[in-house]
Amino acid sequence: MSFDRLWADLLPVGRSADDGGYHRYTWAGADTDARAWFTEAATTRGLDVRTDRNGNLWAWWGAPGPGAVATGSHLDSVPNGGAFDGPLGVVGALAAVDELRSRGFTPDRSLAVGVFVEEEGGRFGVPCLGSRLATGGIDPARARGLTDAAGTTWAEAMAAAGLDPDGIGADPDLIGMFDVFVELHVEQGRALADTAHPVGVASSIWPHGRWRMDFTGRADHAGTTRLLDRADPMLPLAHTILAARALAEEHEARATVAKAHITPNGTNAIPSLVSAWLDARAADQDALAAVVDGVREAADRAARDHGVALAVAAESTTPLVEFSHDLRDRLAGIVADRVPESAGPVPILPTGAGHDAGVLSAHVPTAMLYVRNPTGVSHSPREWADPEDGRAGVVALADVLSDLLSAPGRTT
Amino acid sequence: MSFDRLWADLLPVGRSADDGGYHRYTWAGADTDARAWFTEAATTRGLDVRTDRNGNLWAWWGAPGPGAVATGSHLDSVPNGGAFDGPLGVVGALAAVDELRSRGFTPDRSLAVGVFVEEEGGRFGVPCLGSRLATGGIDPARARGLTDAAGTTWAEAMAAAGLDPDGIGADPDLIGMFDVFVELHVEQGRALADTAHPVGVASSIWPHGRWRMDFTGRADHAGTTRLLDRADPMLPLAHTILAARALAEEHEARATVAKAHITPNGTNAIPSLVSAWLDARAADQDALAAVVDGVREAADRAARDHGVALAVAAESTTPLVEFSHDLRDRLAGIVADRVPESAGPVPILPTGAGHDAGVLSAHVPTAMLYVRNPTGVSHSPREWADPEDGRAGVVALADVLSDLLSAPGRTT
Repeated sequence: MSFDRLWADLLPVGRSADDGGYHRYTWAGADTDARAWFTEAATTRGLDVRTDRNGNLWAWWGAPGPGAVATGSHLDSVPNGGAFDGPLGVVGALAAVDELRSRGFTPDRSLAVGVFVEEEGGRFGVPCLGSRLATGGIDPARARGLTDAAGTTWAEAMAAAGLDPDGIGADPDLIGMFDVFVELHVEQGRALADTAHPVGVASSIWPHGRWRMDFTGRADHAGTTRLLDRADPMLPLAHTILAARALAEEHEARATVAKAHITPNGTNAIPSLVSAWLDARAADQDALAAVVDGVREAADRAARDHGVALAVAAESTTPLVEFSHDLRDRLAGIVADRVPESAGPVPILPTGAGHDAGVLSAHVPTAMLYVRNPTGVSHSPREWADPEDGRAGVVALADVLSDLLSAPGRTT
Repeated sequence: MSFDRLWADLLPVGRSADDGGYHRYTWAGADTDARAWFTEAATTRGLDVRTDRNGNLWAWWGAPGPGAVATGSHLDSVPNGGAFDGPLGVVGALAAVDELRSRGFTPDRSLAVGVFVEEEGGRFGVPCLGSRLATGGIDPARARGLTDAAGTTWAEAMAAAGLDPDGIGADPDLIGMFDVFVELHVEQGRALADTAHPVGVASSIWPHGRWRMDFTGRADHAGTTRLLDRADPMLPLAHTILAARALAEEHEARATVAKAHITPNGTNAIPSLVSAWLDARAADQDALAAVVDGVREAADRAARDHGVALAVAAESTTPLVEFSHDLRDRLAGIVADRVPESAGPVPILPTGAGHDAGVLSAHVPTAMLYVRNPTGVSHSPREWADPEDGRAGVVALADVLSDLLSAPGRTT
């Protein structure tokens, strides 16, 4: 199967010699290389590669137009991310095209294989930016002004990549061509790990979001300033980190403070400013609101106790995504055909992770296939899928596409 | 008085247009400019400027040799520091030379005006590095290998500045020339603020140090990893920040976590590593040990609770410095002559801040004069001394130097 060769080709791009972690950031070095790799691999296959107004890539099998089936994922990574999150869905889609052709399959509809930009928000902070832009989910002016850690804006970085940042925004002509979108993705947990199923189907994406908290204190000498005279923003930060964990436990949710910028970040300089980010997710909107409101209250209280000012802003929020039940059940039926009956029904899984499929689902009937991950780890060099399971994912995707590309009229 | 002109000349060097904070980092831009300013100001005065083997500058009034009196301070800053911490003692020393000359004073001994490198540890992390090197207080090989935030070593930065890093280390020939060292410094608290005294005298420097704590967790996806499966180093960090504060309160000490590096520092990526620095100071060694041991225990316990590994290393420690009582009383007597009797005795003050004077005090009789700081703030753009008090500091220093430079034989 061509999957192994495609996978081996992409594997070194952006991989750290240290520990094998990936560093692929939108509009820069390794991410640009990975996009070039995609363009070449798709062109070699006779697919017609186009860049949409937001910088997402689309490789067409058949003429672009209404009634198309779309698949794909992303190639960017979190800092020091894993090999599979994103690339498995892109490589898997190209391999599925090869698989369908090797079966002698002739599609009745066109297929678009997509690579979304900035899915992780690893450079500009807003996840699923490419799909949000295309579906009108974010104001283009706000997107243009997003900055990376060095202060470079999205507009500047996109222009430096040779694309026109003035053209970004909702792309109904493109999105309107898609009758259905299916994303193949590595599982980001161990729900499949102890089953006989290499492939599962998504049920929902938890509502989730990112909140930025700016704790403004007062710069002072850490050695000479009396404790009572301080306005040290590290103290409310600490209370907030612990409150997030406690509230996540209470509501069976996830709440994490994994990123903070400390100014000036000197050993003996009480910070004037600490900016920290809350990532929160829960099974339903009420639980998420309870977690986020609770963290805000705890942060507010601790900030007040320490004479620190607090400003909280939602950077991105995504409501509950419940994937189309009809489509999900249709996919589960197709996937089940490759698994012995003794394995039991194909697992239907919720996830805490956001995906471009989640963003698209408000506009297009959407589904996801998950490939088993024995470590359950994601966003880390330890993220994994056995090659055998990767190939099973390609077969499943090919089976699903074969069905969707054959169906007459509107797919669902 | 020449103080105002000298001060106005140096003031813009390395000052941020934003909020007036200073950014002077050893061997780079603004710090190099400030050193060049010093060399020119001293040379213009007919002083002979020499760079010692460790990169400290010495402007000699009279021939270098045994029996000399030394004064001075430093020109580097913490990130976004104030204008006075360091520069006041350098500018003040040059102004004191002018003042003595304007009085027609002829010294019986030589005077050396020093500018120590890397007093703040703002670039390479070890404070008082220039004085530590000169007095043999740090292994030269360790100093050469110290790195800044960009990974540049002390050796590389020093070589780029045109100096020989292989030559650094203990400099007994230089230190042996000094019979006494007096440092003029802005006060870093408000002990003088509500008195009639513009100038006080140092009694002691609290024992203090910096400890690096590496919390090694496991990189994971913040949205998908179950709470129980995490090894999130932000959680023990939070406990450690709060423990430091509680222990400082308990022991009437200072303990601060003001600097941390989070890897990879992504919103949805549980960190693999958090490095944080503890700055701790206390009135005596027992109290300091109680604070530091307590923080270590709390950090250890929290790390264990969360499956995180912890390594703690002392980066620098400085024992209690008790300045020479004879010299201190002699200075207080001299300073008192300029203050009305109704002001009461000249304040004799301990401090939580480290100084090159503290490092030298183990080798040379040493004293410090503090200039009143109405804000009490230090290491911040709000650090302040009224110009009138700055001039009073220069007069006090000139009076003291006049006495020391006239005394026959060994000074104390």
